[in-house]
Amino acid sequence: MSTQTARKDAPSTSKGRATRDRIVAAAADLMYRHGAAGTSTPALRDAAGVSSSQIYHYFADKDDLTRAVIAFQTQAILANQTPLLAKLDSLNALNAWRDVVIDAAREHGGTGGCPLGSLSSELSDHNPQARTALAASFTAWAAAIREGLLGMVGNGTLRPETDTDRLALALLAAVQGGLLLAQAQHTTGALEAALDTVIAHIHDQATPR
Amino acid sequence: MSTQTARKDAPSTSKGRATRDRIVAAAADLMYRHGAAGTSTPALRDAAGVSSSQIYHYFADKDDLTRAVIAFQTQAILANQTPLLAKLDSLNALNAWRDVVIDAAREHGGTGGCPLGSLSSELSDHNPQARTALAASFTAWAAAIREGLLGMVGNGTLRPETDTDRLALALLAAVQGGLLLAQAQHTTGALEAALDTVIAHIHDQATPR
Repeated sequence: MSTQTARKDAPSTSKGRATRDRIVAAAADLMYRHGAAGTSTPALRDAAGVSSSQIYHYFADKDDLTRAVIAFQTQAILANQTPLLAKLDSLNALNAWRDVVIDAAREHGGTGGCPLGSLSSELSDHNPQARTALAASFTAWAAAIREGLLGMVGNGTLRPETDTDRLALALLAAVQGGLLLAQAQHTTGALEAALDTVIAHIHDQATPR
Repeated sequence: MSTQTARKDAPSTSKGRATRDRIVAAAADLMYRHGAAGTSTPALRDAAGVSSSQIYHYFADKDDLTRAVIAFQTQAILANQTPLLAKLDSLNALNAWRDVVIDAAREHGGTGGCPLGSLSSELSDHNPQARTALAASFTAWAAAIREGLLGMVGNGTLRPETDTDRLALALLAAVQGGLLLAQAQHTTGALEAALDTVIAHIHDQATPR
């Protein structure tokens, strides 16, 4: 795969932006279900209801499209999680976030995995541009979790010396590992065990009341 | 992909077994680097130094070969981990296991991920036979970790009421999530954070001395 970065400029009209958005949403859905390699231009054309020339009008190549899908999925996850993480003012709120993550995985019986995790497993070793984008996405996700934990330090729920960087990474790894295992095991048992163990540790770090 | 299971009988001669083993080892290496979909018969033929007809002599189809690779990687991981896990008689021994997992990931700068985790992410949603095999592999891995933790309960290091099932799953999820994040981030930071957080929780469960 090329390590060159070819990009198209963002569309200048609202109609152009709508078409581009429709292509990206359809590509994200296809890549989530079949992987990036399993997503062909004809399938995308049919799913998005556009012509191949429209796809190539908005995207220089498949790597360009893949980057757009990574940005789309990152935005979707952060839009879903940030409101919950922004109000992590208590251990109860942390458990509410845990429930949302687990319920989402349960909804489809564990299948699917994480849209970003699956793309990362497929692409990171072979597509340096995608890897860099995915690394930035995971960093942004960990930062959103850390912000929430910092709120709990700010209001005295967690001790000032709590290592929020480390706990945020541990929670993100628990989500990723738990979702990956759910895909094989068709149960959220490992996801629950992982999140509950890290959260139990956070409980133990809480200021005694 | 077919959900039918076609299998060939195990070779009856030692020469046959050696050829089959060479094919499986070469396929495991190719699938680890390029995924199952990215592993072609010509590439496998060249890597194993065998003919296509030899490959089809030992394997009914690619699914049959993939199952053999999953069995091979499971055996390799358990052979590597079980001796360490079998002597988990102390918190220090648990940390020694942690170091081995992290050092292995550091050795290749975080690239590669877990051979079983990567195959699971690629195959679980589309290949029911592979998914079932991978689920069994993860269950065996978690059981080996649990055996180690049970040893620590047996010698009084951990309290009798310790939920070793849950902790084993949490450790396995930490390994999987940490290795997946290492592949994107090219650092073992998340792997270390995840393992250290679960292990810190296990420390807190230890019998007071």
